[in-house]
Amino acid sequence: MTFQAPVDDILLALKTASDLEARISAGLYDDLDADTLAAVIEEAGKFGAEVLEPLNRVGDKAGSKLVNGEVVTPQGWREAYDQFVAGGWGALPCPAEYGGQGLPEIVQMAVAEIWNATNMAFGLCPLLTQGAIHALMIAGTEEQKAAYLPRMVTGEWTGTMNLTEPHAGSDLGEIRTKAVPQGDGTYRLFGTKIFITYGDHELADNIIHLVLARLPDAPPGTKGISLFLVPKYLVNEDGSKGARNDVVCAGLEHKLGIHASPTCVMKFGEGDGAVGTIVGAPNRGLNTMFHMMNQARLAVGVQGVAISERATQHAEAYARERTQGAKLGGTPGEMVAIVEHADIRRSLLHMKAMTHAARMICFATAGEIDVSHLASSNDEREAAAARGALLTPVAKAFSTDASLEVSSIGVQIHGGMGFIEETGAAQYYRDARILPIYEGTNGIQAIDLVVRKLPMGGGAVVKSYIDDLSRMVGEVAASNRPEFGRMAEKLGAAIKALVFASQWMGEQLQSNPEAALASATPYLRLFGIAAGGAYLGRGAVAAVRGGDADARAVMLARYFAENISTEAPGLADTITGGAEAVIAATPERLGA
Amino acid sequence: MTFQAPVDDILLALKTASDLEARISAGLYDDLDADTLAAVIEEAGKFGAEVLEPLNRVGDKAGSKLVNGEVVTPQGWREAYDQFVAGGWGALPCPAEYGGQGLPEIVQMAVAEIWNATNMAFGLCPLLTQGAIHALMIAGTEEQKAAYLPRMVTGEWTGTMNLTEPHAGSDLGEIRTKAVPQGDGTYRLFGTKIFITYGDHELADNIIHLVLARLPDAPPGTKGISLFLVPKYLVNEDGSKGARNDVVCAGLEHKLGIHASPTCVMKFGEGDGAVGTIVGAPNRGLNTMFHMMNQARLAVGVQGVAISERATQHAEAYARERTQGAKLGGTPGEMVAIVEHADIRRSLLHMKAMTHAARMICFATAGEIDVSHLASSNDEREAAAARGALLTPVAKAFSTDASLEVSSIGVQIHGGMGFIEETGAAQYYRDARILPIYEGTNGIQAIDLVVRKLPMGGGAVVKSYIDDLSRMVGEVAASNRPEFGRMAEKLGAAIKALVFASQWMGEQLQSNPEAALASATPYLRLFGIAAGGAYLGRGAVAAVRGGDADARAVMLARYFAENISTEAPGLADTITGGAEAVIAATPERLGA
Repeated sequence: MTFQAPVDDILLALKTASDLEARISAGLYDDLDADTLAAVIEEAGKFGAEVLEPLNRVGDKAGSKLVNGEVVTPQGWREAYDQFVAGGWGALPCPAEYGGQGLPEIVQMAVAEIWNATNMAFGLCPLLTQGAIHALMIAGTEEQKAAYLPRMVTGEWTGTMNLTEPHAGSDLGEIRTKAVPQGDGTYRLFGTKIFITYGDHELADNIIHLVLARLPDAPPGTKGISLFLVPKYLVNEDGSKGARNDVVCAGLEHKLGIHASPTCVMKFGEGDGAVGTIVGAPNRGLNTMFHMMNQARLAVGVQGVAISERATQHAEAYARERTQGAKLGGTPGEMVAIVEHADIRRSLLHMKAMTHAARMICFATAGEIDVSHLASSNDEREAAAARGALLTPVAKAFSTDASLEVSSIGVQIHGGMGFIEETGAAQYYRDARILPIYEGTNGIQAIDLVVRKLPMGGGAVVKSYIDDLSRMVGEVAASNRPEFGRMAEKLGAAIKALVFASQWMGEQLQSNPEAALASATPYLRLFGIAAGGAYLGRGAVAAVRGGDADARAVMLARYFAENISTEAPGLADTITGGAEAVIAATPERLGA
Repeated sequence: MTFQAPVDDILLALKTASDLEARISAGLYDDLDADTLAAVIEEAGKFGAEVLEPLNRVGDKAGSKLVNGEVVTPQGWREAYDQFVAGGWGALPCPAEYGGQGLPEIVQMAVAEIWNATNMAFGLCPLLTQGAIHALMIAGTEEQKAAYLPRMVTGEWTGTMNLTEPHAGSDLGEIRTKAVPQGDGTYRLFGTKIFITYGDHELADNIIHLVLARLPDAPPGTKGISLFLVPKYLVNEDGSKGARNDVVCAGLEHKLGIHASPTCVMKFGEGDGAVGTIVGAPNRGLNTMFHMMNQARLAVGVQGVAISERATQHAEAYARERTQGAKLGGTPGEMVAIVEHADIRRSLLHMKAMTHAARMICFATAGEIDVSHLASSNDEREAAAARGALLTPVAKAFSTDASLEVSSIGVQIHGGMGFIEETGAAQYYRDARILPIYEGTNGIQAIDLVVRKLPMGGGAVVKSYIDDLSRMVGEVAASNRPEFGRMAEKLGAAIKALVFASQWMGEQLQSNPEAALASATPYLRLFGIAAGGAYLGRGAVAAVRGGDADARAVMLARYFAENISTEAPGLADTITGGAEAVIAATPERLGA
């Protein structure tokens, strides 16, 4: 079945979770309006369905290959990328001063959902380039910006993030790659990086690597890491492509999924050293990298939404087509489409409700990022930046965990066919599995939420957010609609559970931080369920106010409240009462 | 890391969930005692670790291939299978009159756990052969038994189950394969079967297919299906191998996992028809097949336990070896093994607790099957058969769903390395994904539990089982051990939730069966959590009575109670209050 861009659902998420209409009215987005936004998503949807989706399985089967030291992407990839560049899609969120369209984060995330739904292995390439552009915008010199940004903005050149080394994954303080100053403002880099997405390929004329490395006199640990720009090809003063730099792809990983996305082992300085320039101040590289990673984390959350959306559309099409078994109370022997069976309907509802909830959280986060950049008042910008920071780990981890659940149910709905690769459901399941891992594992997101984000503003940031969620649920209760069933009660119980667990977390951070760490993962899920449910409830209220009591928004909100929010009190119980059992399980006892 | 057979854990499951010691004392198992059992598992563990495990990744990479119309298994497979036969492992559970060792179901399930933990693609071959032997034992003629069983029992010949056709998966009533009587007691079969595990291979000299087909005058639907025995090679009167039969493998599926296990499209009667004999009475084939499938369902549940065990051992070894990040309160920059981090310990505990709970349920079921065959009194046999029937769908679905959770956490613990195929964690994740699908999807298991099993004996079967669980939890409460934390409270709440949900299910089956179907899946999970928790609690009580308050059994039971049983009240809420939202989501509204 051909992919249908979920234009209405994305707009609903923006209106519900990101106050799109109010923000447009207030002039936050200049002349962007909802119709333009819809048109952009629609157009992206066509590009995704026509150009990217047909390459998704092709790319999965063929994979990218290392041929004579150069990465070769699957057949058709280069042409698709050329069309992507020609269509101006890469430039969409980029600063106008470097040739971009300067569209806000919400638009970028909307089109990113499309790229990743139709072809996640392809979607990673622009995602990484955006991250590199972002790093240069915040920390690059004017020379660096002028030399690199114009062609990165169009997508003619792509970007990478070189962080991980074999012994330094989550703990970047252990990085050993060296950068030796040459006295002329350049550096020579020596070291090996692993897991470098699109570290090499032939899609673009040049690849701009952003590389974490240590200066010779750098202090140990995280405070001695600097960021460098190392192009695959040096760039001459006149902007033309110069000599090949001393950086090569030494190997490709054989992965569970996203086969077409080359995951490279990169060797810097096998010869005289890879020539680079420093980005930002010496020893301050992690700051820039974290900045850029934070934005990438939201983008990964959106990848989770994307793959969930695609898996859901795929499974639903199958469930409407495949006949098997008689309907309850129907004529025995008369097979019906399996979508008629209650257990399959539960499965599809679960996929849809989780996808919608994750999308709400991601677009809420994107909206906060926009306000943090675009609002006129400093207070507004700061408040939005804080809320965006609070929500980012939830957007990343909740959405990507959801994508595992959703893509797994997608396989299951297909029965035996789901296990056959040709069907396609299995690829979503495989591709999705990277999402909870990269850009900081979901365990690290949970710890970030608990340890760094909850204490922001002395707890005021999280409190004001939960207050907003409470108000949304209050409106569900006030609407008192019979179609809502027990929606208000269940959404309210989830908020109550979140309040209780958040208080407990605050106390533990003071008195017993290991307990807070031990319960961070279930806490993040509770946070996501409470937030996602509140947004869905708000969407349902808007629908009935608009006169559409039969709206799908009502159906999904009710399902979510009565079947997923019901997890929340148990999660609070686990969080507040389960940590001791974790702490008691020392490594020694665990292995006994 | 080399696989360690979980001898103690299997014995603990048998003692706790299957009353092993009492049953041995009562003479149920003749001269089998716990030491012999331990020795058998130990020996199987050696065979698995030395012979099967080294082929697991090899088989995954190479897969089985179709070469000139014959299936060729990966290198080393044939030798391993020969050793398996020579070691007498195939004959272990088989009837002594046909050369088997006649060991009970609990022993067979214990060794099956080992084969599937070390190499699930291999383990499927004997699993299918056992099913075919079982079908012949219950419905075959003396001639059929004499001609086929001796060599199937040794494993020289293997067996298959041919059920599915392209349009008839879950709904076997739609089967179209034809069997035409030849007037000499034989039949000629014509039709295509798909998803036939080990439908062809070169491991054994002959393959005995059990095939569902229709006689020419058969009534439509499930009441017109007969079972046939169709050997790959006809067997001469003197027992020697005769002519090649008209059955061929026409294709192999390209699957997400278990690559080495050939999943065949089988064509019967491309020429004059495949020669077969009928097994059991005409039009009664489904009865025999269901009998055999029921046993296979428990075996699939054990595959879930097996892959969970293997994924857990694999992840734990990595977590003890991989250093990353400083310990909370430790020296900054001094990396510790990740098993020291609380979030990783929670992950490992979750894997272990789910694996143990699933194993308890599977071995409880195996024990009931043994009692149903071996007890001296008819009443005992019948009661055990009923309880075994009640537990079988839970053993199958809960354990295989658990295997998805556990193998996914296993990938996650490895971080980026988990996504790399060489690491091995991804293979468990891929292999496990078939388990909730085959031998009846887990949705069908849930419906079986609710629609067929709960009403058994007017509800008395489930009631007496829950009463037994309650008594176990009562002993946890009575023991009043400080090490137990809130174990009794949480296990008790899970039982209470199960009682409540079971009553609701009973009522819906009378008044609103669609609601019962809509909530069947969460009901099965609740059932598994309540049962698994009670068994773990019982194991903890036994450990402290034995003077070992620090026992791992206590640690895992407490974790399970305080972190997993906590789901139970929410599940009861979903079951009893969530079905309406599912029913309200008609196929039309779902797609709106």
